[in-house]
This record gives sequence, structure tokens and C-alpha cells, in this order.
Amino acid sequence: MAKGEEVSNKQIILKAHVSGFPKESDMDLKTSTIRLKVPQGSKAVLVKNLYLSCDPYMRSRMKKLDVPGYVPSFTPGSAISGYGVAKVLDSGHPNFKEGEFIWGMTGWEEYSLITAPETLFKIQYTDVPLSYYTGILGMPGMTAYAGFYELCSPKKGEYVFVSAASGAVGQLVGQFAKLMGCYVVGSAGTNDKVDLLKKKFGFDDAFNYKEENNLDAALKRYFPKGIDIYFENVGGKMLDAVLLNMRLHGRIAVCGMISQYNLDQHEGVHNLLRLIAMRIRMEGFLVGDYYHLYPKFLDFIRQYIKEGKIVYVEDSAEGLESGPTALIGLYTGRNVGKQVVVVAHE
Amino acid sequence: MAKGEEVSNKQIILKAHVSGFPKESDMDLKTSTIRLKVPQGSKAVLVKNLYLSCDPYMRSRMKKLDVPGYVPSFTPGSAISGYGVAKVLDSGHPNFKEGEFIWGMTGWEEYSLITAPETLFKIQYTDVPLSYYTGILGMPGMTAYAGFYELCSPKKGEYVFVSAASGAVGQLVGQFAKLMGCYVVGSAGTNDKVDLLKKKFGFDDAFNYKEENNLDAALKRYFPKGIDIYFENVGGKMLDAVLLNMRLHGRIAVCGMISQYNLDQHEGVHNLLRLIAMRIRMEGFLVGDYYHLYPKFLDFIRQYIKEGKIVYVEDSAEGLESGPTALIGLYTGRNVGKQVVVVAHE
Repeated sequence: MAKGEEVSNKQIILKAHVSGFPKESDMDLKTSTIRLKVPQGSKAVLVKNLYLSCDPYMRSRMKKLDVPGYVPSFTPGSAISGYGVAKVLDSGHPNFKEGEFIWGMTGWEEYSLITAPETLFKIQYTDVPLSYYTGILGMPGMTAYAGFYELCSPKKGEYVFVSAASGAVGQLVGQFAKLMGCYVVGSAGTNDKVDLLKKKFGFDDAFNYKEENNLDAALKRYFPKGIDIYFENVGGKMLDAVLLNMRLHGRIAVCGMISQYNLDQHEGVHNLLRLIAMRIRMEGFLVGDYYHLYPKFLDFIRQYIKEGKIVYVEDSAEGLESGPTALIGLYTGRNVGKQVVVVAHE
Repeated sequence: MAKGEEVSNKQIILKAHVSGFPKESDMDLKTSTIRLKVPQGSKAVLVKNLYLSCDPYMRSRMKKLDVPGYVPSFTPGSAISGYGVAKVLDSGHPNFKEGEFIWGMTGWEEYSLITAPETLFKIQYTDVPLSYYTGILGMPGMTAYAGFYELCSPKKGEYVFVSAASGAVGQLVGQFAKLMGCYVVGSAGTNDKVDLLKKKFGFDDAFNYKEENNLDAALKRYFPKGIDIYFENVGGKMLDAVLLNMRLHGRIAVCGMISQYNLDQHEGVHNLLRLIAMRIRMEGFLVGDYYHLYPKFLDFIRQYIKEGKIVYVEDSAEGLESGPTALIGLYTGRNVGKQVVVVAHE
């Protein structure tokens, strides 16, 4: 297509704000048009979207949120947005040039006009699959890195538990913990994922939480001496059970609470008194506060990937049309590894 | 009485481990005898107890606890123990001499044989009421100091909320926060205590939580811009409401959760997701980890007391017999200020 041409642009839109469990029918595929050129004088960037990232936090954007300072809600009727990898087709911004690849916040559509390109990351290394920038080399990778190294203060020999451990963030946290010389156990929701944790990602052990009717007992089985570090991705009952198993001066990095995102009334957590007896630090974080570490992280992780010391599993859904199913699948644990939607292979 | 004499020794004993709300009848006054001399060759210390400290954490010792590393349960049939101020009558330990005053863990009885005197603090300054060493100059003072300065990282101009604010710890935290230039609001359970907070302790504002049917709305009224620091003494519904009002990068020092101590099933806390959106750090602590700071604290607080910049209110119950009523009164908020039991005035 020629630059400046007006082309059709398929988009995934949210029909209305969602309460309870999201359904595919809460979203719609719409076709609009877009001119493949940034408006005259604008500093925007016009991109072709290649890979879109499905991330648990996106659930919170499907509802009408009232939390100041947090990511804003999606606008019903408009294309939803999220992290993605894209190719620059036209640019009004001096930092970006036609033909370059970027990752960052973009639209769930074939082409996007990004009006705040300052938040985008230019992709310098293309010797890895570009889709990796939705995961291991992008926001989830940075999340695992910041959450584990900056919040958990890990030490060799410590006992680490990771929930939602085969997901984009969890699989990396577990591998970081092994590199640090920790003992690592992960939980996941299918036996295949448990196998993946043990055989592919090198977790010391793993269990299927759906097959445990007493999570406290399960954790006591896997951590007879207790847990030093809990990387929290799920919340609710798992958190309550973990609190009963934390060791003295334990640390909980609160990255996500996916079990709660679809509940209108969140489950109560009953064992917070353990924070006192065990002197536990529990801390929530958002990756956005840590992007200044991204260059350092990128050097770190690329080296380990090259050496084969860190592996990565993604689950690809082909075509923008598959987006709603892929996104909703996160909340039933349908994905195995990082869920990506392939809009175009360049 | 002569040294070495065998004398009668009134004691407060716990009859059996308690579940639910403790009653005076869970304890009993018993009279045994004690010889006012340490056994030959022992490093113990024999003391006459003067002031006994009633502290909320003692509730946890009335039940059969299974938390490793935490203070042990009381032994039914034996005198309960707790912090107190006492006079040394005889000593087998080189650090303590007859006639000296100490504070630390002792028995709820007239005389105690303390077999691990290493944990005791010798009282050097007797230019203040000795009972202060059960509160402002003792464990609660040190708790307020460590919790506020070490965990909360306070900065001038920040918004600080203290629950159970007229208690031994709360009244000090509020005053520390004012000294730091923070805006401080406290909650308490009677209007008299609210008056005390505002008029005596210099809190910027205070409210009676029992008169608020919507704690979230109350906090929004007192903190229209939100809370930077929450000094947590109560837990449960108050914590849930506070979570909805924390500001970005807020800090919660979890000192106690008195609202939960008498419940067999603790209340659920539903708003922990806010930890993520607001990047909140929530940390439990025990004063025992901070006693290395005690000499520094003592210099700090004595200076402020001398200058009249920190005031202190205690609630004295006369006689060991009044102990059970005084202790149980903590859980209904009967005490105004630090609750002390006076066993003897020297």
C-alpha cells in the first residue's frame, strides 16, 4: 500500500463496560478506515500492529474504574488498547523513523495512530522473534525483573513461591529465582502447565492448585520450612494460604491478583495478622515505575537468552479476530505461556 | 521483710486457654509463696513488681498459639507474664544489683524470680515516674518509634492516619508525626478520647469510629487528598476502608489488629488490590527486632518530655487484683491512655 493511502482498519472494540466474567461478546470486530499518514505538523506515529499482548491487568480496564493514578478504563465503542509490537509506517516524531520497530501501548487494530509516542520503546535488537517484545523483552519481562529483584530482595537458598507460574511473568520469576540459587515452587491450573514448570522452566517443584482442596496443606507439603518470597499473581484464597506459610521477614511482591479481577466483590483475606508475627513486607508495584531500568534489564536478559539459561514459552493466536477469545482465555487459564495475538507477521 | 524470707505472693493466673472474648473469670487471683532470694549459683534475679503493663498483644498469649517465632502462649495455672517495672531484691546476675530498678518481661504477681535477666533493661533515669517504663519509655514507646520512623519513612507534609490513636502507642505516633510536620488524624472509640487527641496530643483532627457507619466516607472527609501513612493498630473494617484511601506509594506499618484478636475467624480484608494500583507497602513488625535502637530512642524521647513537646497519658488501676479487669478493658476500649496496673508504689 502506498504511504498516505486510506485503508480499511479492522479493530477490536469493547461494546460496554463489563461486570463479572468477561465474554467474547463483550467485544466486537469493527472495520473502519485509517489514512496511513500522520497529520501534518503532528508529532504522532502511524504504525502497523504486528503482535498484541494479552495481559491480566487489562481486565481492570474493561470496567469503569475509579482509582486515580491507575491505567484508565477502555472507552466503549473504541478500539481497546494494550502493549504491542508494531512497525512504523510514518512518523512526525524525531525519535522514530519509517521502517523501525517499536513496542509499547498501541491499539487492538491493524493500524494505529499513536499520539503520545514518547512512551514507546524503539526495538534495537531484531535477532530474536519480535513477538518477544510483548513478553520476555517487554512489559512482562520488565515486571518480573523489577518485582523479583527490586521488591523481593532475594538471597541464595531462600524458598520462593510463584503463583500463575507458567504465565508471562511467572515463568521468568521462577527462572530468575533459580539463577539466584533459590528453591522455587510454582502453582498453575493444569497438569500440562505443571509439567512445563518442572521440565522446561526448571522449577524445583510445581503443583496444580485446582487439584488441591486445601491450599495451606499443599504449601506445607511443598515448603515444609516455609516461604521466604511469594511472588503474588493471583490473590484471594491462595494469598490467605501463603500468609500461613510465610517465614520470618518474608517478602510478598504483589504483582497481580487475577483470581479477583472478575469478582464484583473481592474475596476477603483473613490471615493478615501473620504480617505482624512473621514481620512480613507486602508491597504492590506497577512496572511503569521501573522502566528506567529497562536498558539494564535488556542487557541482562538477552545474555541469558543467548546462553540458553532462560527459556520462554508463548501461546500465539493467529489474527486480530482471535483477540477476544485469547484475551478472555487468560481468566480461565486457557493459555499456556505468554498469550500473544498475531495481527501480522510484518 | 528480710532478704531470703519466704513470703506470700499474690498472682494472677490464667485458668485455661481462651477463645472468643476474654472475661475476668478466665483469670484468677491465687496466693502462693516465694522465697525472696535467688537460688544458690543461679544467675536469676528476684524482683518486687511495681507496675505491670496491659498490652493488646497479650490477647494472643491467652490462646493456644501455633505461630513459630512469636511470643509463646500463657501456661494455664501459672501466673501470666508481661512487661513491667520492678525493683531488684536479690540478684545472681552481675549486671543487676539489689535496689536497682528494671523494666522488661516479668510475672503478674507481687514478686518474680526472673531466670533470663539478660532480656531486662536496667532503669538509669528515675527523674520520671517509674510507671513510664511500661509505656512511653518502654516497649510501647519503642514500638511507636520503630514503627513510625523505621517503617513509615515519614516526610514533612504527609498525611498520617493513626487508629487506636489514644492508646499507649497511638498517642506517641501522632505526636511523632506532628514533630515531623505531618498532618495527623486519629480514630478512637469515645468522644472523650477524640477530645484528648485533639486537645492534649495535638492531632490535627480526630474522630470516633463508632459514630461512623461508613468508614470510607469518614476517611474521605478527614483526608480529601488521601493518606500517605497509616499506622495500623486495629485491622478489619478499618484497614479495608483505609486501603481505599491510600495515596500513591503509601506506607502501612502493621503494629497490631486489636479488632481481630477476640474473633475466632478473622474478618476478611477485601481491598488489597489497591496495594498494586497505589504501589503501597504494608509491613508488619515486632518491637523485639528494634531494641538495639533503645538507647537512641531514650535520648530522643527524654529530651522531648523535658521540653514538654511530648505528653503522655496513662490510666492506672490500683492493686494486682484489678489486673484482669484492666487487661480485658483494653479490648472494649475502657482505658483512656496507657493502661497500667499498680502492684506497689516501690
